[in-house]
Amino acid sequence: MGIVNYLKKSEKIQHVIILVMSYIIAMDIGGTQLRVASFVDGSNSPVTANRTPTRSGNEIILDRVISAIESVWSPKQVKALSVAWPGPLDPALGIVHSTPNIPGCDNFPLKSELEKRFKIPVFLENDANLAALGEWKYGIGQGFDDLIYFTISTGIGGGVISGGHLLSGSHGLAAELGHITVAPNGPVCPCGQRGHLEAVASGTAIARYVREGISSGRKSILSIEEYISARAVSQAARQGDELCLEAFNVAGTYLGQAMANFLHIFNPSMLIFGGGVSQSHDLLFPPMKKSMTELLMNSAYQKNLRLELAGLGDDAGLLGALALARQKLPIT
Amino acid sequence: MGIVNYLKKSEKIQHVIILVMSYIIAMDIGGTQLRVASFVDGSNSPVTANRTPTRSGNEIILDRVISAIESVWSPKQVKALSVAWPGPLDPALGIVHSTPNIPGCDNFPLKSELEKRFKIPVFLENDANLAALGEWKYGIGQGFDDLIYFTISTGIGGGVISGGHLLSGSHGLAAELGHITVAPNGPVCPCGQRGHLEAVASGTAIARYVREGISSGRKSILSIEEYISARAVSQAARQGDELCLEAFNVAGTYLGQAMANFLHIFNPSMLIFGGGVSQSHDLLFPPMKKSMTELLMNSAYQKNLRLELAGLGDDAGLLGALALARQKLPIT
Repeated sequence: MGIVNYLKKSEKIQHVIILVMSYIIAMDIGGTQLRVASFVDGSNSPVTANRTPTRSGNEIILDRVISAIESVWSPKQVKALSVAWPGPLDPALGIVHSTPNIPGCDNFPLKSELEKRFKIPVFLENDANLAALGEWKYGIGQGFDDLIYFTISTGIGGGVISGGHLLSGSHGLAAELGHITVAPNGPVCPCGQRGHLEAVASGTAIARYVREGISSGRKSILSIEEYISARAVSQAARQGDELCLEAFNVAGTYLGQAMANFLHIFNPSMLIFGGGVSQSHDLLFPPMKKSMTELLMNSAYQKNLRLELAGLGDDAGLLGALALARQKLPIT
Repeated sequence: MGIVNYLKKSEKIQHVIILVMSYIIAMDIGGTQLRVASFVDGSNSPVTANRTPTRSGNEIILDRVISAIESVWSPKQVKALSVAWPGPLDPALGIVHSTPNIPGCDNFPLKSELEKRFKIPVFLENDANLAALGEWKYGIGQGFDDLIYFTISTGIGGGVISGGHLLSGSHGLAAELGHITVAPNGPVCPCGQRGHLEAVASGTAIARYVREGISSGRKSILSIEEYISARAVSQAARQGDELCLEAFNVAGTYLGQAMANFLHIFNPSMLIFGGGVSQSHDLLFPPMKKSMTELLMNSAYQKNLRLELAGLGDDAGLLGALALARQKLPIT
């Protein structure tokens, strides 16, 4: 065997070994479920994956997180750990702030605790930001370097890719797109302020609109004797219930006002909609598009603009965490 | 002379030659004035500079621009030309759109016309975006990788640096920060839409507030018999004129509402204020800070946040154009 062929063979073997042995573990911590998966270089299909409830009795969250990581840890060559967290945090410091869905984590140094435990680099980002990154790298947003991702469910979250960069802000608190004022002096938002987009266009707001309408004497096939969800409102709206149709019209109109602002601010080429309420796009998008178009100062903002439903579903945060680690690691 | 010393000397000479021979010409085209300057590598003090009215009789703008460039062209080794333009444009295509201050330029291919004429790379960006870049690279914003620049004068413009990147958008139309809705169904904006920040907080809006107040019978030391400028309003406000103080209070309160939105969206560490009306910061900033603080969902957004007046004055656009060329050129 000549030296050249020998080297070629040797390089090939080494390359295979690296592929087999080098893993990234990604994790998506939700309010109710904790998902974890390991990935090899070049692939976004998990080698192993697991899910578990985020909380179990009085067990502290860090122990749940560590157990979940260990459940997919078997291959020894894990080179990084990347975590999507369902609330505000400082990615540089690796500290999570007060998170409504996960009590008891105020100012918790999640990054350093995990680095101490596993002795590998740990990356941390907000889950909506990572969903945007996931959709951009592996989902419907591939090739669109200026996109905005919205998740419309109980609340409204967002993530922004601008010029091929994830918007994070000086302390990781950027892209809180549900918290811009669209109705000054309007309903109170869960954050405590009035008239935010989340307070008038989330699933919670849509259901509240119907409840308040019924309470004030409006007719509806829904009854306040039962729990009214945004899903119930959408089903009633599709049956022609006027109050429920109006609830989606109002929410959609506010969303359109917010979209016009975001187009003027970011000039994106794609808007991606995820979250449960986005499944009711047949009810939500027509009034949203109407008010967005009316409020734009220039039709150029709609040139080549695409509105899409999220492509990755529940995997967006997990795959975004994977993408984050691949961006941050020197060789991926 | 030993070979080492010889090489050192030779390198030194070559280095000096490159410094002397290699120029960037930057240009800031305003509605009234056209400024141009040439810079050598590593310096942001112009070697030569010139200014001229943007318009002269019926002469077309391209001829004015070419003459201005030629006026600083004498050193032959110009490696790039970079232009700040006072309106919307597509930087990738190099086409300027309809620009209110400079009639007759709709969809004009400025970049390709200048490249054809001068046979060097030409870069093009909106002037407010370049003012942000200028302040970041050479002004008050140095070292602040997440900052927002506002110019508050006749209108309201903006530029954003996010994570060390200039926000431009998919077609260069991002950062139109004066055109977010803060007063739904409010006064008409020059862009044609209602209730934009520019329609309620620009110099024009402040002056209009006072004019309308006087017309409706309010007392003021100003008179609608004379032309009322924002500067006149600020002078009267400083003399205790109630209507004029109120005009600044209203504008500042709207500005604060917009700032809270921008903090939630960008989480910057610095807000920079330029433009003539920002000179009245003693009147404008107190109500602005008050409403901004009230409307933030989390005090973390104000942690280490700095509010600053623009440092580069009239030079911001010109130096931003210089910074743009240095970013875009392979070796600068």
